[in-house]
Amino acid sequence: MASEVPTRTYRRLSVEERRGQLLNAALDLFAHRVPEDVSLDDVAEAAGVSRPLVYRYFPGGKQQLYEAALRSAAEELEHCFAEPPQGPLTQRLARALDRYLAFVDEHDAGFSALLQGGSVIETSRTTAIVDGVRRAAAEHILSHLDVKEPGPRLRMTVRMWITAVEAASLIWLDEEKEPPLDELRDWLVEQFVACLVATAGRDPQTAGVVRAALALETAEGPLGELVRRVLPVVGDARL
Amino acid sequence: MASEVPTRTYRRLSVEERRGQLLNAALDLFAHRVPEDVSLDDVAEAAGVSRPLVYRYFPGGKQQLYEAALRSAAEELEHCFAEPPQGPLTQRLARALDRYLAFVDEHDAGFSALLQGGSVIETSRTTAIVDGVRRAAAEHILSHLDVKEPGPRLRMTVRMWITAVEAASLIWLDEEKEPPLDELRDWLVEQFVACLVATAGRDPQTAGVVRAALALETAEGPLGELVRRVLPVVGDARL
Repeated sequence: MASEVPTRTYRRLSVEERRGQLLNAALDLFAHRVPEDVSLDDVAEAAGVSRPLVYRYFPGGKQQLYEAALRSAAEELEHCFAEPPQGPLTQRLARALDRYLAFVDEHDAGFSALLQGGSVIETSRTTAIVDGVRRAAAEHILSHLDVKEPGPRLRMTVRMWITAVEAASLIWLDEEKEPPLDELRDWLVEQFVACLVATAGRDPQTAGVVRAALALETAEGPLGELVRRVLPVVGDARL
Repeated sequence: MASEVPTRTYRRLSVEERRGQLLNAALDLFAHRVPEDVSLDDVAEAAGVSRPLVYRYFPGGKQQLYEAALRSAAEELEHCFAEPPQGPLTQRLARALDRYLAFVDEHDAGFSALLQGGSVIETSRTTAIVDGVRRAAAEHILSHLDVKEPGPRLRMTVRMWITAVEAASLIWLDEEKEPPLDELRDWLVEQFVACLVATAGRDPQTAGVVRAALALETAEGPLGELVRRVLPVVGDARL
């Protein structure tokens, strides 16, 4: 029975499990401190293993560990975007944003350090990983908009909004996480609708997408609310 | 009279003139190639001076020269934003965007390399310079919106749009400068209006800004056009 007493169990982990454990420890550290302030000793200590063991798994040292952790975070983030293609688009987008914003909330310092640039740990490889996440986000959105061959204007609108969401996330982290997450989420959904509607004015494909999307919304939904709040503001204009 | 024949005149430049000449040569090179592909020899050759002379002005080598060139480009860019506070806001924004987009057009490869991140030449100092330009752009816009103490929602909306404009510029460079600049400019103005109007739905300060701004517009102006193009798209929705 003695063998079942939980002691330092790390010798029993498989290679994959060990790797995952080290990545999780690293992700947790990178989430709360800038990469410059995380050492391999910190990672070893957090994972309850020796420094040489960390080096055995990541012989490239901190840079390799950081990139692996980033890749793992990128996968997690891409899972956030998955959403069944049913129901009003504003609801689908709101649910995906809830998961994305929870990720931002959890990984705050690391998320900022990575996206604000100029970090010692930033390389063309880390940039490529982040760009991959942006591309995945754009593809998810375009697939929900149900267009097979999105034209340049629709694609540019979606990519502009994704960048704007990133900017909003960084500002939100910087401004002590104000406004509350659900308010930020609703606002970002409204910004998406506004950008799409403006593009619809000059692009027939986007106009088709907007018509189809609006047909799924109800007067009680977030778009009905938006219209009721915005109309009084613009109603007096002599346009 | 022999002394008036233009030969290699560089010994006659003042320190400031020489520095400016080297920066211009560097900016021109960085505009057309990624920083990795520009050597100090190239800069010396383009400026028609010796390599040691370049080093005398920039003893920190390429990194120092790059940062100085970037600082000079940042100043040029901030001049683009200056616009007298008269007339409809959409016209002021369109004129500032014209100058900004001309800058993007001129500095294309360098602009992309700098903003896409992961460049060998990117440091916390270059990031700070770029952030300074973003801040300057935001301050210009907020001053045109004529608000003394912009609240968090108005500031976030402006900063999100600025990031979206950057994204659009990079995509535009990447997609062989399509659509034409004047179309891109009008579209970006419309996106700004759309984002501001959406925020006005949840923020009284932004609502006040939108009312005041709309009062300066005319039915024949770009906003009147936008409304006429967008209304048929959203008119059928049961909101």
